[in-house]
Amino acid sequence: MSLAMSGVSAMAQQEINPAARMMESPEVHGDSVTFRIFAPSAKAVNVAARFVSDDKAMTLGENGVWTKTVKVTKPDLYSYAFEVDGVRVIDPLNVFVARDVNTLSNIFIAGSDSLVDMYRVSDVAHGTVTHVWVDTPKEKVARRTSIYTPAGFDATSAKRYPVLYLLHGMGGDEEAWLTLGRAAQIADNLIARGLAEPMIIVMPNGNISQTAAPGETVTDGNFTQPQFYLPRTMDGGFEESFGDLVSWVDAHYPTLTDREHRAVAGLSMGGFHSLFITLNYPELIGSMGMFSAAIYHGEDQPSAIYKDFDKKLDVLKNTNNYVAIGSDDFLFDENKRFKSALNQRAINYVNVVSDGGHEWTNWRKYLVDFLPRLFNSGK
Amino acid sequence: MSLAMSGVSAMAQQEINPAARMMESPEVHGDSVTFRIFAPSAKAVNVAARFVSDDKAMTLGENGVWTKTVKVTKPDLYSYAFEVDGVRVIDPLNVFVARDVNTLSNIFIAGSDSLVDMYRVSDVAHGTVTHVWVDTPKEKVARRTSIYTPAGFDATSAKRYPVLYLLHGMGGDEEAWLTLGRAAQIADNLIARGLAEPMIIVMPNGNISQTAAPGETVTDGNFTQPQFYLPRTMDGGFEESFGDLVSWVDAHYPTLTDREHRAVAGLSMGGFHSLFITLNYPELIGSMGMFSAAIYHGEDQPSAIYKDFDKKLDVLKNTNNYVAIGSDDFLFDENKRFKSALNQRAINYVNVVSDGGHEWTNWRKYLVDFLPRLFNSGK
Repeated sequence: MSLAMSGVSAMAQQEINPAARMMESPEVHGDSVTFRIFAPSAKAVNVAARFVSDDKAMTLGENGVWTKTVKVTKPDLYSYAFEVDGVRVIDPLNVFVARDVNTLSNIFIAGSDSLVDMYRVSDVAHGTVTHVWVDTPKEKVARRTSIYTPAGFDATSAKRYPVLYLLHGMGGDEEAWLTLGRAAQIADNLIARGLAEPMIIVMPNGNISQTAAPGETVTDGNFTQPQFYLPRTMDGGFEESFGDLVSWVDAHYPTLTDREHRAVAGLSMGGFHSLFITLNYPELIGSMGMFSAAIYHGEDQPSAIYKDFDKKLDVLKNTNNYVAIGSDDFLFDENKRFKSALNQRAINYVNVVSDGGHEWTNWRKYLVDFLPRLFNSGK
Repeated sequence: MSLAMSGVSAMAQQEINPAARMMESPEVHGDSVTFRIFAPSAKAVNVAARFVSDDKAMTLGENGVWTKTVKVTKPDLYSYAFEVDGVRVIDPLNVFVARDVNTLSNIFIAGSDSLVDMYRVSDVAHGTVTHVWVDTPKEKVARRTSIYTPAGFDATSAKRYPVLYLLHGMGGDEEAWLTLGRAAQIADNLIARGLAEPMIIVMPNGNISQTAAPGETVTDGNFTQPQFYLPRTMDGGFEESFGDLVSWVDAHYPTLTDREHRAVAGLSMGGFHSLFITLNYPELIGSMGMFSAAIYHGEDQPSAIYKDFDKKLDVLKNTNNYVAIGSDDFLFDENKRFKSALNQRAINYVNVVSDGGHEWTNWRKYLVDFLPRLFNSGK
């Protein structure tokens, strides 16, 4: 018998449609991308994407296929979906999706430049990505954590590595920097080019009331859909648990344990967490990055983490600080006030003001800019 | 300012729809599941799922929400999608999807019994899942491999572990057993209950012409959609590279390196690979599992791997063999002939004939049955 034929039969049973691959969507050519969807009975189909600014309507051809070609304004990783008769759906021809909190979108990369090429899987030695449950004695639970180790890493060798703790935003989890943030690809590419030091990147779940990403937790017997607002995200609990995480990592990985070889950075809520971890545990942190960070908050919380903010700020005189924000970010003014406070105290920081708002296109870009500055990469 | 409000604003920019979580789909209650989708402009909406055997049509309510409640016939992990005006789409309210080759489907678990409860994330100590690139000197490329290590695993301790090599089917890759197969949850649950030995499970990419799952490979600058048929899947190349994989694993993990503590098993094409690895490298393998395996193939290939099949069969007198197949599987007769050949030679094997066909519901079930038989678990 022919196994090739068996294969067809087998897959047909598995709800796989071989015909689905007879056309391509998205088809990317340079800065232009064509979307296609077979929907002969639909009345209206749109491309649902922020980068399609004006006319989002697709056009129905005689073959039942709706198409639309758009140009992208710059090389980037883009996300999109379709709207079929008003229903937001992901592209049935594109298996590449990323979850942003509770919403799946398709993704693709268009164009090429020195930035977006860092997001691609390149022909370089790849690091390892591990999903491990970390015991946190203070909370008496294990928390799922993603850990990137660079190419060539060997747990049994004598070589020791610096560590970046990389924190997600509100609604995110330990998977966000890997999926939407392309952290593993960015680190692979920068390290392979000698632009960043080989380092371990630890991406914990920063939601103190959640032990792991949705689908990875013990639930009521089924999968629980992600929620926007979790309890206790900014009550000081995560910052207080940070020392336990560092102890665990230093006990289980060959790390350099002095503060000069330990950094913390994060986006939005994760930038907020990074700031207060640094302010409260200066003995642990040598470098700190705030990407579109929330800042002024927590004064109403009982935690000592948020007390004496102004007094603690002088801690940042002894750390390498990086503050990045988009000019359209709703947190721009908040960041401006924060930077004024730093200026008044003559506290140094790398000041990055980019285009755009509170979005992953900025956070990926900031990570590419930030990693080469860490651990005396000399860049 | 209120950061909770900021959060809404931030997420709205990220193509997240807060209103999407105002209703639930799927809503599972016992053996009954209700699907919902907001599609006021659609003309017809169906549930696209094999377990919905008869009427697949959903009903439109006055609120623009289509609903359908169905009963499932047994506790299991189920997959489904919707058809909106003829377009197969995933449920916009359910972020839990699994990719089967080139098709995404939503998944949920319904019901409870001793089998399906093994697929759930339970309140037990969890193992670690690692995605690592393995050098294969023979092929001169690195190949991405998923590795499960059990709870309590410590690379630096003196404890050594047995290893199961767990292989995917045609069109699958190193992610299939983790996503559709629930291998990590199954291993966690069996090991925590003392039903299986703590073991390392190595899940390589068994497509010799593909180094990694789609999206993880170097492509022409974009993501390349998965393909059904890859070159060289069954030409002997994977079996020939198996020794390199074992050497790498034994060099990088604290393994027990005698054949009694090494097993190989796989589904469909992976069962075929498992068989020929065992027949050709009997010094490496103590236990072998074939789940809905393809068997008679390869005679037309030049590789010595497939030569002298009948003669090599006696190798199986010295291994623990497990042969499982569904009564509706298109490979049932092929497996029957194979088992007759084993019988003629008085070769022992565990003979599992289940309901159903060539499908993940069987492969998960076989894995739950198989793991406790390995490495003298004494079950």
